[in-house]
Amino acid sequence: MSVNEQIILAKRPQGMPNQADFAFEEQPMPVPQAGEVLVRTVYLSVDPYMRGRMSEAKSYVKPYEVGEVIQGGAVGQVMESTHPGFREGDFVAGNWGWRRYAVVSSSTLRKINPELAPVSTALGVLGMTGLTAYFGLLDIGQPQAGETVVISGAAGAVGMIVGQIAKIKGTRVIGIAGSDEKIRYLTEELGFDAALNYRSETFEDELREACPDGVDIYFDNVGGEVSDAVLRLINKNARIPICGQIALYNLEKPDTGPRIQSLLLTNTALMKGFLVGDYQSRYNEALHELAEWLRDGKIKYAENIIEGFENTPEAFLGLFSGENLGKQLVKVSEEQN
Amino acid sequence: MSVNEQIILAKRPQGMPNQADFAFEEQPMPVPQAGEVLVRTVYLSVDPYMRGRMSEAKSYVKPYEVGEVIQGGAVGQVMESTHPGFREGDFVAGNWGWRRYAVVSSSTLRKINPELAPVSTALGVLGMTGLTAYFGLLDIGQPQAGETVVISGAAGAVGMIVGQIAKIKGTRVIGIAGSDEKIRYLTEELGFDAALNYRSETFEDELREACPDGVDIYFDNVGGEVSDAVLRLINKNARIPICGQIALYNLEKPDTGPRIQSLLLTNTALMKGFLVGDYQSRYNEALHELAEWLRDGKIKYAENIIEGFENTPEAFLGLFSGENLGKQLVKVSEEQN
Repeated sequence: MSVNEQIILAKRPQGMPNQADFAFEEQPMPVPQAGEVLVRTVYLSVDPYMRGRMSEAKSYVKPYEVGEVIQGGAVGQVMESTHPGFREGDFVAGNWGWRRYAVVSSSTLRKINPELAPVSTALGVLGMTGLTAYFGLLDIGQPQAGETVVISGAAGAVGMIVGQIAKIKGTRVIGIAGSDEKIRYLTEELGFDAALNYRSETFEDELREACPDGVDIYFDNVGGEVSDAVLRLINKNARIPICGQIALYNLEKPDTGPRIQSLLLTNTALMKGFLVGDYQSRYNEALHELAEWLRDGKIKYAENIIEGFENTPEAFLGLFSGENLGKQLVKVSEEQN
Repeated sequence: MSVNEQIILAKRPQGMPNQADFAFEEQPMPVPQAGEVLVRTVYLSVDPYMRGRMSEAKSYVKPYEVGEVIQGGAVGQVMESTHPGFREGDFVAGNWGWRRYAVVSSSTLRKINPELAPVSTALGVLGMTGLTAYFGLLDIGQPQAGETVVISGAAGAVGMIVGQIAKIKGTRVIGIAGSDEKIRYLTEELGFDAALNYRSETFEDELREACPDGVDIYFDNVGGEVSDAVLRLINKNARIPICGQIALYNLEKPDTGPRIQSLLLTNTALMKGFLVGDYQSRYNEALHELAEWLRDGKIKYAENIIEGFENTPEAFLGLFSGENLGKQLVKVSEEQN
């Protein structure tokens, strides 16, 4: 217990990242100072947006430095606290990233109630993932009952929550994903009205058939040719929240495609990139509503959990092979009562 | 005076339109029925958006039919009225299009006060042109003092009003246009902070130098590679009203370019196509403010007037050669006192 371990960015990935872009480092166990808390990591989050931070390019969050620990969402249990608000054994969520243990300022921690839902949901449906779905769909998308909502990356952590909120709002929901297993999950388990495999040779025809009244909201996690196909079907006054562009994160050159401004113009449509952090002042309101939906069974969630801190890079790399269903987590240690 | 003349769409243009796409037709002079007004056209408006209506493709307004009179903005003088609100000699604006005389329902006419400003401005700064600039910039762009506003097609009818309103709002304004004469006009006559010729070989470097603090608002009339260059410079929370895409209207195939969704995402930027008609309920408020700015000399306008109804197609075709400065009008008959 006197040694800590962490994962740093060893070098900036060129194109698709691989194991050699990361390195494991041992460090002495950190000691909390006044106002700080020592936590043991229970779950780590690996997310597509992290790929962006591994590049030097300007983005909405500053790039990771080479040699720096990979920062990201984590859930842990307090081992030692100098702050009266946190006691040994408390579950907390924070952003300390890929470390087995961390000393964290208490002001950056959020306490989790393990009675409410499994603590892992603080990284998923009751955390950034759920908030991203909530604000992107409701604030930018503004769904109205009877409208058609199309979601790319629909079987991903954010996409599947977007679809379920869209159903709560009375819309027709079409998910796009990359395997028949995901397609089945979206329609049979989550109640999507239709789901399509973008790898199908007849994808464009299937999409057109699935959207006989056009597309009012396109929640885009993916980008590229999938988006080209959806955008050709948008209706007047369509709204297009841009949440991610996972198809492009590992391209070494900017990709090209049909320019979309004419489609936005002739349909007087709105497209907006967004970042969940823009909505910080409304997190509580949203988490409250998400928790109610979860409790009432209106929202289900899926987690894909890889065991073992040593498998964190692998879990991250798996995000780009399109195999994970729902939220990808790494389990680093056991929850203790 | 017993014969009327009108211009119809003879066939749908393929690519760049030409004279053969239009035909002149003679018709008996129309006679107003109850609630109708007979007007003599004084000025006709020719506008880039009309090119869109000449194609069959879905757009925000329905396509012209082949054989149909080209509809569009016009200013005229009442010759005969069956409605108490309009008297012989009154100046009116409406949408009767390319005809020497027209019988028009009084409910579609707007009376113009010739004391306020030249009646031709009802087709420009105090008409659709000014309203388009006003709502696109103020409602979608939301300019804040100190921000940088870039305008493509800046020497066009809409662009030059956008730039002047942006100056009223305390922003730094950079115009993009296609000739050195236009560039000079924008900076020397209209007070733009900088203006750039997109035909310059060093255009991209000049643009970067003209926007040392990036671009907060890009008011796009043009599209294509000019837009690609501007979008690379957008700031966090940039707003991009899409007003027109004149560079593309005559392309026979959809054009391709770098996909822009990643730029919108990493800058949490908003792009919106708009149509002035969406703001109909606020026209009066906007016209009032535009008229005040005009009276106070805060907005200047430029008109390019071609004489003679027979030259209407030529005036329209000239919009795509990039030679007109400001609002392109056709003078069909004299104003009478």
